[in-house]
Amino acid sequence: MNADHQAVTVIGLGSMGSELASALLDRGHPTTVWNRTVEKARPLADRGAHPATTPREAITASPLVLACVLDYEVLRSVLEPVAEALAGKVLVNLTSGSPEQAREMAGWVRSHGADYLDGAIMTTPPGVGSPEMMFLYSGPHAVFEAHRPTLAALGDPLHLSDDPGMASLYDAALLGLMWSTMTGWLHGTALVGAEKTPATAFTPIAVRWLTAVAGFLTAYAPQVDAGRYPGDDATIDVQIAAIEHLLHAAEARGVDNALPELLKSTMERAKVAGHGSDSFAGVIEVLRKSGDQQ
Amino acid sequence: MNADHQAVTVIGLGSMGSELASALLDRGHPTTVWNRTVEKARPLADRGAHPATTPREAITASPLVLACVLDYEVLRSVLEPVAEALAGKVLVNLTSGSPEQAREMAGWVRSHGADYLDGAIMTTPPGVGSPEMMFLYSGPHAVFEAHRPTLAALGDPLHLSDDPGMASLYDAALLGLMWSTMTGWLHGTALVGAEKTPATAFTPIAVRWLTAVAGFLTAYAPQVDAGRYPGDDATIDVQIAAIEHLLHAAEARGVDNALPELLKSTMERAKVAGHGSDSFAGVIEVLRKSGDQQ
Ligand SMILES: NC(=O)c1ccc[n+]([C@@H]2O[C@H](COP(=O)([O-])OP(=O)(O)OC[C@H]3O[C@@H](n4cnc5c(N)ncnc54)[C@H](OP(=O)(O)O)[C@@H]3O)[C@@H](O)[C@H]2O)c1
Ligand SMILES: NC(=O)c1ccc[n+]([C@@H]2O[C@H](COP(=O)([O-])OP(=O)(O)OC[C@H]3O[C@@H](n4cnc5c(N)ncnc54)[C@H](OP(=O)(O)O)[C@@H]3O)[C@@H](O)[C@H]2O)c1
Repeated sequence: MNADHQAVTVIGLGSMGSELASALLDRGHPTTVWNRTVEKARPLADRGAHPATTPREAITASPLVLACVLDYEVLRSVLEPVAEALAGKVLVNLTSGSPEQAREMAGWVRSHGADYLDGAIMTTPPGVGSPEMMFLYSGPHAVFEAHRPTLAALGDPLHLSDDPGMASLYDAALLGLMWSTMTGWLHGTALVGAEKTPATAFTPIAVRWLTAVAGFLTAYAPQVDAGRYPGDDATIDVQIAAIEHLLHAAEARGVDNALPELLKSTMERAKVAGHGSDSFAGVIEVLRKSGDQQ
Repeated sequence: MNADHQAVTVIGLGSMGSELASALLDRGHPTTVWNRTVEKARPLADRGAHPATTPREAITASPLVLACVLDYEVLRSVLEPVAEALAGKVLVNLTSGSPEQAREMAGWVRSHGADYLDGAIMTTPPGVGSPEMMFLYSGPHAVFEAHRPTLAALGDPLHLSDDPGMASLYDAALLGLMWSTMTGWLHGTALVGAEKTPATAFTPIAVRWLTAVAGFLTAYAPQVDAGRYPGDDATIDVQIAAIEHLLHAAEARGVDNALPELLKSTMERAKVAGHGSDSFAGVIEVLRKSGDQQ
């Protein structure tokens, strides 16, 4: 099998699926496409893709089938009527969902004699095809390795685990990090914006600061694994004191403080649980269980 | 004035002030130090620093005086009895505080015939001396430029504004971004940790993902400045749907959901305010005013 020429099918040509098919065409893969709404296949057909008229035809056309539709229910509704066509194929599912859905889908696909990889796309459609963008995969490692060269057309393929649920679990965790970071950035942008600093002035400094913050995360990760959080650099007690400056500065400028208030109360819960003189990594101890009792 | 040999005084030899003095000694600056608790000067004196016995002697010794003590009240209590010694000096205050405190200190210092720069140290003590670490300054640009070569001994000096309050305002905004990012990272770490993924396995992927997130911030910054948030890549509506996966996955694993619940409700407020089909940057519209009425 020459990876440069492996035939691939793409099911689902929404904004993401269309970019996946486009990246495969860019690398010269014979590409078959199918979408419920037929018109979305046209721009890809114009570039040489083969538009299948039914899901069965699409699956039959290639050994490797990528799926990227709205959700798992939709994918199941598309595949169920043609399940026997899956035998001997590899299905790579890039639809977003939960770890539980991924595990269930893996079982169902295997029961029809196909291999299954679950994937999470860590970029937006314009990032597809860039080797910097991460595509996370979980499922049998040997299946991943066999198709890695083809998957590399979409972005940088990373294999996480043989457990098919892990790509979705990482996806959720990383999106949570993204929303936290983006909301923190917007709060800071609103704060300096209250003193007429444009977002385009603040953001390069914020981006550079994130590199330093990434260094803190890297230093804290082994503390989390060890369950010991030596507060050599800055303790939770010191950070509780420091966040008061942020709260006052934001309040004085009419900036909503719900996020920093929550960050402060989370640190205070860690302090109450005995982590005041630990590093910030000690906060994980109060996130691991729901509720306030630690 | 040869920057390599400019004489510098450091007032305050806590964990941060000691590193500042140490970095100056490393670069060969004649360095005078003073600290309330005398013993903390000893390791620096052993390396060639001159330990002043009074704040007056310390200030008199050098044209450039760096201060890094607990807070502004402490600094004022140290300087007030010897204020007339400040005439003709440059005071660079690296103590953390509010923009209002920085502006007040600037006025007081100028009233005694000295120049004033306010600074914010965007690293922990071990990072001092590294050219990657940002030191933010505000106050007269010409004063900053005159002393930039000396300040470069401490880290990368960036001048923000002639307004002395801006370094503290940026400091608050950047620390808020840090706590948001660190808490989001810990939440994700707890989530994947519930399925036996070590923090040291998750974190390199999280750090790499932050690079992609930084790209989103850079794309959103001009949207914030324009007050228009085209949702080409991913709308707030789509992200409200996606955060449900995170909430369910975390709840199923006993991970505290206060942070993602807040992120979701913040997005929902943006939706109610008419930004559902905007990009995430539209969330800033509901952060700019306190309260829920938009
Ligand atoms: N866009 C992103 O930035 C991004 C990033 C990472 C992951 N993802 C994930 O990628 C997947 C697709 O996202 P997208 O942005 O491409 O969404 P989209 O543009 O809304 O496309 C949705 C796709 O699902 C199909 N579909 C919906 N309901 C269907 C049904 N009942 N039967 C058959 N097909 C149906 C649509 O077909 P029609 O054209 O016929 O409606 C279309 O192909 C989602 O799971 C999303 O979470 C997206
Ligand atoms: N550590 C960091 O990671 C970090 C990062 C950025 C900014 N900062 C800022 O840097 C400043 C110093 O922090 P640090 O970490 O060096 O704190 P620290 O180790 O606690 O040192 C505090 C300093 O303030 C002095 N001080 C306290 N009360 C005093 C008083 N009444 N009279 C005279 N001196 C007094 C202390 O003198 P004694 O030795 O006599 O007690 C010591 O020199 C703070 O504003 C902090 O927010 C720190």
